[in-house]
Amino acid sequence: MNRTELSELGEFGLIEHIASRVKLVNTSTIKGIGDDAAVIDNRHALTLVSTDLLVENIHFDLTYTPLKHLGYKAAVVNFSDIYAMNGVPKQITVGIAVSNRFSVEAVEELYSGLRLACENYHVDLVGGDTTSSPGGLFISLTVIGEANSDEVVYRSGAKENDLICVSGDLGAAYAGLLILEREKEVFKTNPDFQPDLAGNDYILERQLKPEAKKNINQALKKNEIKPTAMIDISDGLASEIQHICKQSDKGCRIYDDKLPIDQQTISAVLDFGIDPSTCALNGGEDYELLFTVGIGDFEKVKRIPEVHIIGHITAPGEGLFLITGKGEQVPIVSQGWDGLKK
Amino acid sequence: MNRTELSELGEFGLIEHIASRVKLVNTSTIKGIGDDAAVIDNRHALTLVSTDLLVENIHFDLTYTPLKHLGYKAAVVNFSDIYAMNGVPKQITVGIAVSNRFSVEAVEELYSGLRLACENYHVDLVGGDTTSSPGGLFISLTVIGEANSDEVVYRSGAKENDLICVSGDLGAAYAGLLILEREKEVFKTNPDFQPDLAGNDYILERQLKPEAKKNINQALKKNEIKPTAMIDISDGLASEIQHICKQSDKGCRIYDDKLPIDQQTISAVLDFGIDPSTCALNGGEDYELLFTVGIGDFEKVKRIPEVHIIGHITAPGEGLFLITGKGEQVPIVSQGWDGLKK
Repeated sequence: MNRTELSELGEFGLIEHIASRVKLVNTSTIKGIGDDAAVIDNRHALTLVSTDLLVENIHFDLTYTPLKHLGYKAAVVNFSDIYAMNGVPKQITVGIAVSNRFSVEAVEELYSGLRLACENYHVDLVGGDTTSSPGGLFISLTVIGEANSDEVVYRSGAKENDLICVSGDLGAAYAGLLILEREKEVFKTNPDFQPDLAGNDYILERQLKPEAKKNINQALKKNEIKPTAMIDISDGLASEIQHICKQSDKGCRIYDDKLPIDQQTISAVLDFGIDPSTCALNGGEDYELLFTVGIGDFEKVKRIPEVHIIGHITAPGEGLFLITGKGEQVPIVSQGWDGLKK
Repeated sequence: MNRTELSELGEFGLIEHIASRVKLVNTSTIKGIGDDAAVIDNRHALTLVSTDLLVENIHFDLTYTPLKHLGYKAAVVNFSDIYAMNGVPKQITVGIAVSNRFSVEAVEELYSGLRLACENYHVDLVGGDTTSSPGGLFISLTVIGEANSDEVVYRSGAKENDLICVSGDLGAAYAGLLILEREKEVFKTNPDFQPDLAGNDYILERQLKPEAKKNINQALKKNEIKPTAMIDISDGLASEIQHICKQSDKGCRIYDDKLPIDQQTISAVLDFGIDPSTCALNGGEDYELLFTVGIGDFEKVKRIPEVHIIGHITAPGEGLFLITGKGEQVPIVSQGWDGLKK
């Protein structure tokens, strides 16, 4: 593979290189890359904005993360924040700081993943920034979405007796990470060793190439359900339900035996001596949607195959508890991701 | 001064700490910090979005940049991009990646500068991200602005015979940087030496605490002038006029003796053996507005005290030239900032 130094292209050359490969698809995108700002027409809807910062060796490890996957994941994870507001992502800006160990081809790999995510989710890449970094790769993403004003769902709207629902299954991305970290350690000791990833396709894909749950919002809308509160699961279920309960000023009960966990996740984490429920509660990076619906929507929400009812909201002051199979009440304590404590 | 470790507060503690000090002032800000995305109501206007990434030791040097000034400058520089579209900045999101050599108090200093800029420019801080960095400080900013659809000015609209105008004066920020870099070198050799900054207040302020030119847009509007093309000067006049000419498919003539340069800038750069015009053309970080207006607006634009007419747009293929005092034509070549070549 060719190696073109970034300094050969320079910043403007790189921007042109990136811009020439970007196609705009949304009618709300009036102007994309190439001016002082992107121009967006959201005059029929509200504008949603969310920003993420991804740092090498904090959020990702390039030893086992292909750059294309990294780009795809970085974008999708950001789209997930917009779905968690019950909105639709429409535009994204991407800033990258790269050291000179990266070539133009490496940057192109990263952008090919970003572009693929944009294509799959019908999002326009409309701007950003490219600069050098004294060390490591930094990626900043800002996603712009839209929602009608009567559609936006905040974290703060959960009511007593509301049902707590979650999409898909939990803990898989963390299980995938455990496998990748194990194989990395083996590789360090013996670089000739081939990584043993067989039988773990699902959990590896959940870690390396997650998807945002756009079909959940669509299914809810189709079934005429508007969640009372919603958040996406990036730091783990335990951490996210705390956000909903805190901002809604409520308590909750979540039932251990209702937690949706894939069989591959269970096998993998048991191998590491980790309890599957702990993994589902604290693993993080699921990018599933956690939401609450009124008790009156019980029959309707039951009809959506990918959604699981895992508990209910209680009165303020009643605390946050996990109810085990034996009926014990265990306080929900977040052990999830903390970007400043790692 | 107290030192509180970031790990004591954790990410959510730090976010609460930041959020508790933020006041929202714009009616278009429906929801700020604290959910999966900020919610903005721009339904009477278009939305403008611009992103910047600032990297320690690439874009700023903490040896001589106080964190409060850095926060102020980071925000203002971003606002400048929105003014350059003839819009008004309304919201900002801020992502920071900090290593553990920074304390909570240091982060607070940075945010106090960001907040002051937001206050002075009536912008709401509506979200962001905080995480750790294995080394160095990274700041990503995304500013959201608004403009009526008939007000937006792109880089691409310059017409033949249009007047080329620039606000304020040029080269001052670069002159300030030269002084700061000189004193840093002296300090390295002799740490007891007091920096000699006397008589350079104006150029140091232009480097450390620049302002965005919001009054220019207002003055243009008041005088019923709509620029045909506009850009803000971050990489230097030479680089920016190339953007306008390239995107408008035109040439230009700029007159050396019309370049506005402050006396303090001239004295300082001559001390370093640098030609003041070269500094004005390539210094960068001026955050002045460079724009073109129709020849019919000559009388009106002349009335705005802070605006200088420095040249005119020529036909496509006629090239980009600086006309010296002796009438010589020198091709304009950008030697400005390149984020990937430094």
